[in-house]
Amino acid sequence: MPGFYHRRVQVSVIGSGAEHEAAAEEVGRLLAKRGCKVVTGGLGEVMAAAARGAKEAGGTTIGILPGRDRAAANEWVDHAVATGLGHMRNFAVVASGDAVIAVGGHWGTLSEIAFAKILGRPVVILEPGLEADDVDRAATPDEAVDFVLARLEHPA
Amino acid sequence: MPGFYHRRVQVSVIGSGAEHEAAAEEVGRLLAKRGCKVVTGGLGEVMAAAARGAKEAGGTTIGILPGRDRAAANEWVDHAVATGLGHMRNFAVVASGDAVIAVGGHWGTLSEIAFAKILGRPVVILEPGLEADDVDRAATPDEAVDFVLARLEHPA
Amino acid sequence: MPGFYHRRVQVSVIGSGAEHEAAAEEVGRLLAKRGCKVVTGGLGEVMAAAARGAKEAGGTTIGILPGRDRAAANEWVDHAVATGLGHMRNFAVVASGDAVIAVGGHWGTLSEIAFAKILGRPVVILEPGLEADDVDRAATPDEAVDFVLARLEHPA
Amino acid sequence: MPGFYHRRVQVSVIGSGAEHEAAAEEVGRLLAKRGCKVVTGGLGEVMAAAARGAKEAGGTTIGILPGRDRAAANEWVDHAVATGLGHMRNFAVVASGDAVIAVGGHWGTLSEIAFAKILGRPVVILEPGLEADDVDRAATPDEAVDFVLARLEHPA
Repeated sequence: MPGFYHRRVQVSVIGSGAEHEAAAEEVGRLLAKRGCKVVTGGLGEVMAAAARGAKEAGGTTIGILPGRDRAAANEWVDHAVATGLGHMRNFAVVASGDAVIAVGGHWGTLSEIAFAKILGRPVVILEPGLEADDVDRAATPDEAVDFVLARLEHPA
Repeated sequence: MPGFYHRRVQVSVIGSGAEHEAAAEEVGRLLAKRGCKVVTGGLGEVMAAAARGAKEAGGTTIGILPGRDRAAANEWVDHAVATGLGHMRNFAVVASGDAVIAVGGHWGTLSEIAFAKILGRPVVILEPGLEADDVDRAATPDEAVDFVLARLEHPA
Repeated sequence: MPGFYHRRVQVSVIGSGAEHEAAAEEVGRLLAKRGCKVVTGGLGEVMAAAARGAKEAGGTTIGILPGRDRAAANEWVDHAVATGLGHMRNFAVVASGDAVIAVGGHWGTLSEIAFAKILGRPVVILEPGLEADDVDRAATPDEAVDFVLARLEHPA
Repeated sequence: MPGFYHRRVQVSVIGSGAEHEAAAEEVGRLLAKRGCKVVTGGLGEVMAAAARGAKEAGGTTIGILPGRDRAAANEWVDHAVATGLGHMRNFAVVASGDAVIAVGGHWGTLSEIAFAKILGRPVVILEPGLEADDVDRAATPDEAVDFVLARLEHPA
């Protein structure tokens, strides 16, 4: 039986910062409840929290790692890909999502938002988040998830 | 509940050539039966056949694509990652497997065998396959799967 | 006779937008006059203007291209490198400079600023330029060049 | 004055092994005498020897490094590019040459030969060299340089 992966939406959750883990976990949970797979960079903080939330809600998670060894993935990653790309793997993280939600974050997250925009992926920054011109913002995890799913259904 | 991905072995099946599809399908099937996930480059011929075989046996498949769009993945890919790396994604294909089986193939496959050797991954070429010094060879799909699983259990 | 490249400073000039070409050309000219090599992404607009300015002042230019074919480089690139990385070559553009000057630009430039910050390279945005938190700004090409050269001599 | 880089041929010299340094140095020297720039991976052994030979003959050299820091380049590299790609920079090394000469080498070199073939670059292996099907071979440095320059003038 074919995988029909293409019928399942994949949403990339990006960001960093221990203080944003609760929000990221909620985003992961909500995405899983809505039937989406969660894609992250596979490491700690926001990436681990989003994957943990998705697994708590019975979802499926993909981790796209900077190094060559998939053992570096956090324990909530179901499917780990080792790229050896270092920070350039940020491109693959957002390219592999149909849409992108940013939770906290710093320079690495900004590079991901930039790549997501270049790729034309819908992106939303969850408050309080990075400053970035021309990027939509959401006040709550619920709003962020609603936003990207609405965009995927009705592209702007 | 955590994904415990790290307890599931991932084996990369690489290669190309329509005449090698039956063998690749059998390799995919055998890997799935042995509880391994199958990683491929996500496109056609040997990549599609290996994923199809794995799905027929109830397995799970990952496709690591050269382009930016996961819609390019064949229909037997469960989880597609879009890298935008072109042929350099060959590195991620073998880095994401704990071991590598080559079925047919040409220059792209040779680059993957070379990267697998650099990474220290066990590699086997299924006959009739590419010529390459210092790479182990297997006469049948069964033998190829046995070989890599034995190597993972008892590293040389 | 060795190349002693390491005694020559390399500065990456990044950005886009036809309206910023005059400023970029001036930046390239000033860098060459100060003995710096100019690194760019090798294509048009700001990249071409910076290289043109450097050549007008007798300088040396390096272009790091997204594609596989160095023929895509603009005519003011002395030494072209073809990466096949697409937008991920932005990482190599800033990694190959000892410091970075941004002139105009959009999402690609923002990804380069982010990577430069991750790499710890001194970065300055020439006014009027992108909005980005925690990035220094310069009012004129002269000030931008002075800023990065001062930072290289006396790291913050 | 424009750079007209495109009028200068760039040849990539790839390989490894201390016992092949004398041959690599001679290849670098001959390429420089014939007016070609020499591209290498920028590190030691064959890469350093080829660049040293080119500099001895008054040539120009480019080094495409695996890491993020151009200080890792050997002292005969005139223009160093830092990619952060690890072994994937092998693709950029051969993509940046109009033709490729392999001197000694192991798995990394084999990946470069494979990528060169995918890119359609003329490639020659200098004896004694790697085994690889469908790759031309040359008995001496002179013959190797003649071969690639003839191929660039009269593509097969």
